[in-house]
Amino acid sequence: MIRVVIIGGGKVANHLIKAFLNASDVQLAQIYARNIKQIKEYEHQTELTDDLQKLKKADVYIISVSDDAIEKVSSNIIEQGLVVHTSGTVSLMSLKNKGRKGIFYLLQSFSKDKEVNFDEIPFCLEAENDKDLKLLEKLALTIGKKVYHISSEQRSYLHVAAVFVNNFTNHLYSVGNDICDKYNVPFEVLYPLIKETALKVESLSPKEAQTGPAVRNDKNTIKKHLSILNKNQQELYKTLTDSIINGKKL
Amino acid sequence: MIRVVIIGGGKVANHLIKAFLNASDVQLAQIYARNIKQIKEYEHQTELTDDLQKLKKADVYIISVSDDAIEKVSSNIIEQGLVVHTSGTVSLMSLKNKGRKGIFYLLQSFSKDKEVNFDEIPFCLEAENDKDLKLLEKLALTIGKKVYHISSEQRSYLHVAAVFVNNFTNHLYSVGNDICDKYNVPFEVLYPLIKETALKVESLSPKEAQTGPAVRNDKNTIKKHLSILNKNQQELYKTLTDSIINGKKL
Repeated sequence: MIRVVIIGGGKVANHLIKAFLNASDVQLAQIYARNIKQIKEYEHQTELTDDLQKLKKADVYIISVSDDAIEKVSSNIIEQGLVVHTSGTVSLMSLKNKGRKGIFYLLQSFSKDKEVNFDEIPFCLEAENDKDLKLLEKLALTIGKKVYHISSEQRSYLHVAAVFVNNFTNHLYSVGNDICDKYNVPFEVLYPLIKETALKVESLSPKEAQTGPAVRNDKNTIKKHLSILNKNQQELYKTLTDSIINGKKL
Repeated sequence: MIRVVIIGGGKVANHLIKAFLNASDVQLAQIYARNIKQIKEYEHQTELTDDLQKLKKADVYIISVSDDAIEKVSSNIIEQGLVVHTSGTVSLMSLKNKGRKGIFYLLQSFSKDKEVNFDEIPFCLEAENDKDLKLLEKLALTIGKKVYHISSEQRSYLHVAAVFVNNFTNHLYSVGNDICDKYNVPFEVLYPLIKETALKVESLSPKEAQTGPAVRNDKNTIKKHLSILNKNQQELYKTLTDSIINGKKL
């Protein structure tokens, strides 16, 4: 039985709390939140506190607060036990507790109200030694299935890659949406294509899956498309097309 | 009962043939292919030909050949009946048969071996009059569920939007893959994020769903990310970041 204390009342913390409350082999010993109202719904299921000096003994303390607050919160943890945070960008060294440190990063974009399928979420784990890494792995497997050992350095690269496949991709959806709105085409016509494109990466590498006028270097179509777009969209279209063409040459 | 002749032996044609053979209220009267070997597997299910002069009588002729061949193939159809093509980019006026014309465009990226769920595919239909549009709608509903009336003009805009949400998005996956490969991070860690980002458009507009350093104008993170990337990737990162920041101002 792994004893866990969760520190934080935000989105990720809430998803973790719910998952651990339903898991076997884990005892959620306590939840901390600066504003205790955020976690009030759990008052009958575990102990709550808004005082970091009153943390209970645990095997693992999971800090799931905003990136900026991790240093300060961790410096206030005086209890023994492994202290980890859930951030994708903050390094292990930013944890300022005196004892053992680690990372328990769930690589997913969480929505507040949408239920999360933990079986599909990659747990990116890091610790200072094998024993702690094994502990985090065991803990992750009580609620999830996909476990990866990712160093702080690798995590920083992963974060950049995530900006491309998540933030920038979403922006391209937004441009597609704008074009549809402007010309009175329902954007929903594109939903199945968006879904299919995303699912395809799991069976075919994106380089092999690349189609369209850029990879064919179909200059007529490219010219026709550019004539339809506004200046901002043209800029994007050109840069992405050039990048596809350059990528082909490599 | 709608009598259909399919002209073509490529990916889209094959998916349509299989669907119509399984549909009720449709009689697949004949299949034409220039190279009859492409359609030989259907020889016991319907009539095959490689001669456009020997097309049988039908209510609808579906031309599913390469874009460049549509004009020539359609000019050879002398039979009465509604002649449609399945291209996303060729206009209705490119059909050169003497009689009635229309479009039967399936907006999806088809893979040869992967089975297609026609219930999810948007059928983008166009015809010269209401009666023919109704006929195409009836035909589409024998194998699918989602029917849209899309003019040739709207189709050209839809195609540009599709380049953004499909071709360009796939290229961003490719960049993410390159970054992961370079730093020995398994790209599969990002699959769930890619999937979640794509599915989210159906419940939240992409503009509202936008997250990340660009929309927060988080200059420190942006600078850190740029320092990791190669020149081509930097170019993309900057252009996409600027576009997100500009979009926020509008």
